Amino acid sequence: MSTKHAEKIRVFSLGGVGEIGKNMYVVEIDDDIFVIDAGIMFPEGEMLGIDMVIPDISYLVERQERIKGIFLTHGHEEHIGAIAYVLRKINVPVYATKLTLALVEEKLKEHGVTVRAQLNEVHSDSVVTFEKVKMTFFRTIHSIPDSIGISIHTSQGAIVYTGDFKFDQTPYGINRVDLGKMAQIGDQGVLCLLSDSTNAEKPGYTGSDAIVAQEIADVVYDAPGRVIVACYASNITRIQQVLNAAKKHKRKVAIAGRSMHKVMDIALRLGYLQIPDKLVIPINDIHQYEDKELVILTTGGHGEPMGVLARMAKQAHKQVNIKEGDTVIIAASPMPGNELTVSRTIDALYRAGANVIYRQRNVHVSGHGSQEELKLMLNLMKPKYFIPVHGEYRMQKAHAKLAKAVGIAEDQTFLIDKGDVIEFRNGQARYGGKVPCGNILIDGLGIGDVGNIVLRDRRLLSQDGILIVVVTLSKEAKKIIAGPEIISRGFVYVRGSETLLDEATKIVTDIVNKCMQDYIIEWSSLKSNIREALNQYLFEKTKRKPMILPIIMEI
Amino acid sequence: MSTKHAEKIRVFSLGGVGEIGKNMYVVEIDDDIFVIDAGIMFPEGEMLGIDMVIPDISYLVERQERIKGIFLTHGHEEHIGAIAYVLRKINVPVYATKLTLALVEEKLKEHGVTVRAQLNEVHSDSVVTFEKVKMTFFRTIHSIPDSIGISIHTSQGAIVYTGDFKFDQTPYGINRVDLGKMAQIGDQGVLCLLSDSTNAEKPGYTGSDAIVAQEIADVVYDAPGRVIVACYASNITRIQQVLNAAKKHKRKVAIAGRSMHKVMDIALRLGYLQIPDKLVIPINDIHQYEDKELVILTTGGHGEPMGVLARMAKQAHKQVNIKEGDTVIIAASPMPGNELTVSRTIDALYRAGANVIYRQRNVHVSGHGSQEELKLMLNLMKPKYFIPVHGEYRMQKAHAKLAKAVGIAEDQTFLIDKGDVIEFRNGQARYGGKVPCGNILIDGLGIGDVGNIVLRDRRLLSQDGILIVVVTLSKEAKKIIAGPEIISRGFVYVRGSETLLDEATKIVTDIVNKCMQDYIIEWSSLKSNIREALNQYLFEKTKRKPMILPIIMEI
Repeated sequence: MSTKHAEKIRVFSLGGVGEIGKNMYVVEIDDDIFVIDAGIMFPEGEMLGIDMVIPDISYLVERQERIKGIFLTHGHEEHIGAIAYVLRKINVPVYATKLTLALVEEKLKEHGVTVRAQLNEVHSDSVVTFEKVKMTFFRTIHSIPDSIGISIHTSQGAIVYTGDFKFDQTPYGINRVDLGKMAQIGDQGVLCLLSDSTNAEKPGYTGSDAIVAQEIADVVYDAPGRVIVACYASNITRIQQVLNAAKKHKRKVAIAGRSMHKVMDIALRLGYLQIPDKLVIPINDIHQYEDKELVILTTGGHGEPMGVLARMAKQAHKQVNIKEGDTVIIAASPMPGNELTVSRTIDALYRAGANVIYRQRNVHVSGHGSQEELKLMLNLMKPKYFIPVHGEYRMQKAHAKLAKAVGIAEDQTFLIDKGDVIEFRNGQARYGGKVPCGNILIDGLGIGDVGNIVLRDRRLLSQDGILIVVVTLSKEAKKIIAGPEIISRGFVYVRGSETLLDEATKIVTDIVNKCMQDYIIEWSSLKSNIREALNQYLFEKTKRKPMILPIIMEI
Repeated sequence: MSTKHAEKIRVFSLGGVGEIGKNMYVVEIDDDIFVIDAGIMFPEGEMLGIDMVIPDISYLVERQERIKGIFLTHGHEEHIGAIAYVLRKINVPVYATKLTLALVEEKLKEHGVTVRAQLNEVHSDSVVTFEKVKMTFFRTIHSIPDSIGISIHTSQGAIVYTGDFKFDQTPYGINRVDLGKMAQIGDQGVLCLLSDSTNAEKPGYTGSDAIVAQEIADVVYDAPGRVIVACYASNITRIQQVLNAAKKHKRKVAIAGRSMHKVMDIALRLGYLQIPDKLVIPINDIHQYEDKELVILTTGGHGEPMGVLARMAKQAHKQVNIKEGDTVIIAASPMPGNELTVSRTIDALYRAGANVIYRQRNVHVSGHGSQEELKLMLNLMKPKYFIPVHGEYRMQKAHAKLAKAVGIAEDQTFLIDKGDVIEFRNGQARYGGKVPCGNILIDGLGIGDVGNIVLRDRRLLSQDGILIVVVTLSKEAKKIIAGPEIISRGFVYVRGSETLLDEATKIVTDIVNKCMQDYIIEWSSLKSNIREALNQYLFEKTKRKPMILPIIMEI
């Protein structure tokens, strides 16, 4: 490693700042590129019909021979969900801990990606050495085991990315927080810290998982009938707590949901989950037990729990339908933008006769540290420069305030947007321009074939529907052969709107006839005349603006 | 009044239970109908393109000669917003307090309703006597002045509707809570209480407006530049607090937003708002003042504050655009389902350079009482029967639990849905069937012309767009004259999807040709063949299901 500090370091995000999800951070040491995390984002309300969003990695694709590896901090979708898409485009080694790697392998299998990529297992004491840097790792506490932070040791100091973390002093499970190692990294000199901003707006400390364990056990003990626990498939800590509570109160556990089965199998095989003998029964056997002998653990598609609860409440689930006397524990926080769905689902569960336990009791805590924990991380790492990441802009901003409070000067904190490059030379940082970045929308099998125009059309269609005008013309005879026919969807009920549509048909006929008297018939101007005239007429009559689509057929 | 208890009382809700908004409750004493409140609901996420929702009042329209009056509890949209629509259909007397009545008059003017209805002012000590009952009122504390509860005195006891309330022991403004009167109503015997369930899930007490006043004053004092306060136009208490804070710290106040101007004018004229001399300046004069001399009070359409803040953050507002150094106070809670918009707006404000004060400090408190206050109301009223209203089902359910805790037997509490009738005879209640009820959707000028099918179409269109197939046929010549032409919107980008659309065109051509060889051409079966074939083909290739609309033109 050079000690002249001559190397140029560039740090930027391709996803994960100004948003929740699709985390992907890039550290460049001269020509060497190190990628951290490859997550997806669940679509936001305005992304109509979209299944998920991944980062635009064209910057990486164009420079793939320079990429030394992709380093994954933990196995949540927001951090590894895009890995199959990424590895299809760039064949580079992947580094991750045992559980994370197993989840990645499962994901590649699902996507039918024949793994050409080299998958490397690391653990918290691994050291991975490259030409210009060495990488070390440190254990963190998060809502999935085997989570790590990453430290890239350069001659200018370390670039540290915390991954997702909290400082649970009484965690549940095998992992203890490694304060010593973090302090040591800090003492050796951190050039720049990238830290998790999710809960930067929350004062105090995030609750401990130990409290949750007790609370879940209490709810299971009190429940008069079945207990149905819904959580994210990846929340192995929570799953272990539910298994233990069931065991303690002599109930059997049935698992509903393919993704939960899959994650539990992996975690069990690798030793991250302990399942007592004869505790778990097949879901189809639940009718052989009394309600008071049952706990049902469930999750839905993408391991997300609310959809499956909605089906159970509506009596539309294959094996488990909510009935009077059920107790439902929702051990998850709603994803941003999802609040209304959650609220509807809770209502439906109550209506179906369940008692629903969610916010009222501590059956769930966040996996992300609150303000006091974020300050502790800052004080352990003592970074020269600070980049708050992993969060909406206002969370990054709140995190920057915390940094100021612990003594990091304002001009040494960078509030970056996706693509903003921070450049380090001789231990000094400055803004280094922008790299291309963006959202790739995934809809069904399509990757990136839905973009702004398609989304804008969906938005327009969703507001006032569509009105289609078809007319067949003979250019030769200069007359209308068939039509105009007007068909609408999502605009008004046709019954009761006859006058409106008749009048619209008349308007179109007049325009077409007038147009055909002219010497040259210009299709595009004819279409725009129809569009304008109908737009004006319909808005005047209804104050609505359906999409108007004139189709001219010519024989 | 009869003392034989022979009268039959029926109580039901046409809106406001199982939902937040469009409150409308009906009390029938034999043939006499008393209507309480006539509110709107703001549309929920899945009601695409809808502007607002009002209750279906066909039950009332058919029985209008029996209606004795509409009684309004306070001036919020969720309680008076539908009054113009209702009075257009049923011409009956309206009873409300001074401020509420003024807001109703304004609303009728806006909607161009020439008031044939008789508008009667009442105050908290009024007694309105009808043939079979007398109505009295009691003052409540809510986020708008002149709020009342309503008590209908029957020979079986009183039917009491609380309206929206909290028990603020140190309220801000002229009104004090009238515990004495409530206790007196309770002592005289309440047959049935209908009480506000909004915050039935919240433990403890709702914060006092006195604390908010101090907090707003502190924020205004600390602000380095302009202070922009966004709140609901109808929150006159909050507006008064802002005016007072500005006055105290020697700032001028400018008002942005037509609906806020209107409400403030009314409140000022009627004495519900005190505006110190020379405090308010025209919004166009703000440039004549230093930033530190300014407070800007703002709200948006329907008096809802988030839209206007979004415009200010995007530099798209006519008079006020957010800049570095601005302090924005959001003195409102997001409406359910609106959380993502609020979160986006806060982010945009931060990006524009503002400091944003929302949940972190007590700049806003709810106008609805929490659990301890709801229990206090129950204990004051000591009702024989209880109907929790004004809230989602889970809030009603939580309210029922509180009632049980204060000693109301479970079988004396009714968890009703819209239309469910509770019948009282000789002081005994029982379920009395269902009356017709529902949602009327308002979209632009249309009232009720958007229903489930139109909404379903908008939802389908918003997911995967639409694919339109047009083909012109000669039935005589048994051949295709023009087309098939395939046009899509909101489905895929046409560029890059040529193969897909070419193949689809081929599929349609084959089906049409095959169909025309048959003896009789059945348009509807041809259409459904096209639809099915394309559905299958497109889903296989894209995993998407656009709406498919075949249009057959015939010459």
